[in-house]
Amino acid sequence: MKISARNTMKGTVTNVKEGAVNNEITIKLAGGDEITSIITQASSNALGLKAGKPVIAVIKASNVMVAVED
Amino acid sequence: MKISARNTMKGTVTNVKEGAVNNEITIKLAGGDEITSIITQASSNALGLKAGKPVIAVIKASNVMVAVED
Amino acid sequence: MKISARNTMKGTVTNVKEGAVNNEITIKLAGGDEITSIITQASSNALGLKAGKPVIAVIKASNVMVAVED
Amino acid sequence: MKISARNTMKGTVTNVKEGAVNNEITIKLAGGDEITSIITQASSNALGLKAGKPVIAVIKASNVMVAVED
Amino acid sequence: MKISARNTMKGTVTNVKEGAVNNEITIKLAGGDEITSIITQASSNALGLKAGKPVIAVIKASNVMVAVED
Amino acid sequence: MKISARNTMKGTVTNVKEGAVNNEITIKLAGGDEITSIITQASSNALGLKAGKPVIAVIKASNVMVAVED
Repeated sequence: MKISARNTMKGTVTNVKEGAVNNEITIKLAGGDEITSIITQASSNALGLKAGKPVIAVIKASNVMVAVED
Repeated sequence: MKISARNTMKGTVTNVKEGAVNNEITIKLAGGDEITSIITQASSNALGLKAGKPVIAVIKASNVMVAVED
Repeated sequence: MKISARNTMKGTVTNVKEGAVNNEITIKLAGGDEITSIITQASSNALGLKAGKPVIAVIKASNVMVAVED
Repeated sequence: MKISARNTMKGTVTNVKEGAVNNEITIKLAGGDEITSIITQASSNALGLKAGKPVIAVIKASNVMVAVED
Repeated sequence: MKISARNTMKGTVTNVKEGAVNNEITIKLAGGDEITSIITQASSNALGLKAGKPVIAVIKASNVMVAVED
Repeated sequence: MKISARNTMKGTVTNVKEGAVNNEITIKLAGGDEITSIITQASSNALGLKAGKPVIAVIKASNVMVAVED
């Protein structure tokens, strides 16, 4: 599947924090940055997410904001 | 200002594509990844965005999806 | 690629309305419903979207609201 | 109330999974597709959502992505 | 229609800026704050939005971030 | 930090409801409106959110919908 979301960044899961409905996934990107994702627990389980698993962070361009230092 | 959005990644603007209402901002992150953002033209102008400007990409965790290779 | 977004619905593109930065894509789902998507023109072009093309609408669960009739 | 969100699809709630802050709502659409929504528990309760209740799934066009099979 | 989105704020349209695909709507809230919305031109037209029209700004709770002053 | 999100509204936290992964933050705006936000518990803790704390609600324009009364 090839998706319209403009931003796809490769990384590795470093932590999965389980909630009742949502899980919080921490991903270390290849470039060194860390990114955090909230997805449903059902999706997290369906993808078999756990520390060490190679994944791709996917972000729609309209969900990226830009900031500048004061 | 310190914001709740979990993901903030430093980078440099490499391109600003102007639309009628929205602009598309391309940012090269410090780690080497490229990220694309859609923001209003008014915000783009208010922040003075142009190629070469150091910026921070800001993404709320609930807007980050996770994918795995088949 | 297998993605965490919970909602994926098969359909066919029925119209592409071009903007300066974003395109509006109309999709007729297999079940008969019509769904509208706004994505960047760059993504629309990269995916080769045009009327008649089979596609999948992808929606993160946290972006689905629920309403009831009064 | 008439809303700007372009996508409104009629269906019936098939399941409500309760979390501490958010609930996960599963909806069977008239066309046969199933769609999952994450909303606050407070909203879920205010709308009286439970299996069997007729509802409308509401999705803003900018939150719909498009994918194509490889 | 009663919607799950937790935040609904009454106001009046003060400006509609037309784009090719999206319109930018400026709304003055009853409390005095000004809020800006980007919706499709098709929705803007369907709702008959123009300066002076009473409207309701609708925002899903998961799309509200929180910031504190440094 | 100055951010591209078009909507920033000053207020005061009136309640923090804790979940396992996400917290629900209720904010009373200066103009009198109440706004609800869902953010990660980690962000809520990092910002030290609690009743009485002055905060800023931040909303990207593309996440604001518009509705009209029937």
